[in-house]
Amino acid sequence: MAIVYVNVHLRNEILDPQGRAVLGALTRQNLSGITDVRQGKQFVLKFDGELNSEQLTQINNLAKELLSNPVIEDFSIEVKNES
Amino acid sequence: MAIVYVNVHLRNEILDPQGRAVLGALTRQNLSGITDVRQGKQFVLKFDGELNSEQLTQINNLAKELLSNPVIEDFSIEVKNES
Repeated sequence: MAIVYVNVHLRNEILDPQGRAVLGALTRQNLSGITDVRQGKQFVLKFDGELNSEQLTQINNLAKELLSNPVIEDFSIEVKNES
Repeated sequence: MAIVYVNVHLRNEILDPQGRAVLGALTRQNLSGITDVRQGKQFVLKFDGELNSEQLTQINNLAKELLSNPVIEDFSIEVKNES
């Protein structure tokens, strides 16, 4: 079984009010050393068997077109193969 | 600089309608082999310098009390130290 994590976040140059609110809350709880928080979405995709390169290309395209908005968001993909 | 990723997801036994909708959309796009999708939140926390064990305990407690709802959600924490 393969698990694919697609992490979607607002681009760095875009203001993230939710992240800012969480930063404020964590700071008020006296969490020391924290400088910034960004909040995003994480999709956990499960697949039968191991992934082939065609599936990976497809996942990459769908992450760009369907799971994120490329105008304001960045995404990253992580693959874990589990037995 | 340390980066902490806090991933928050609905517990496995809780129905995730957003994830179900994304599964439907990906299947309709002919993504082969996909069996399940769960959608969650990812908080990216940035810290000055490296983390000590006291900060890690604090992050763990705040993830439980402030960033997630333990009744319906699970969380996982990942730490990356960057130079």
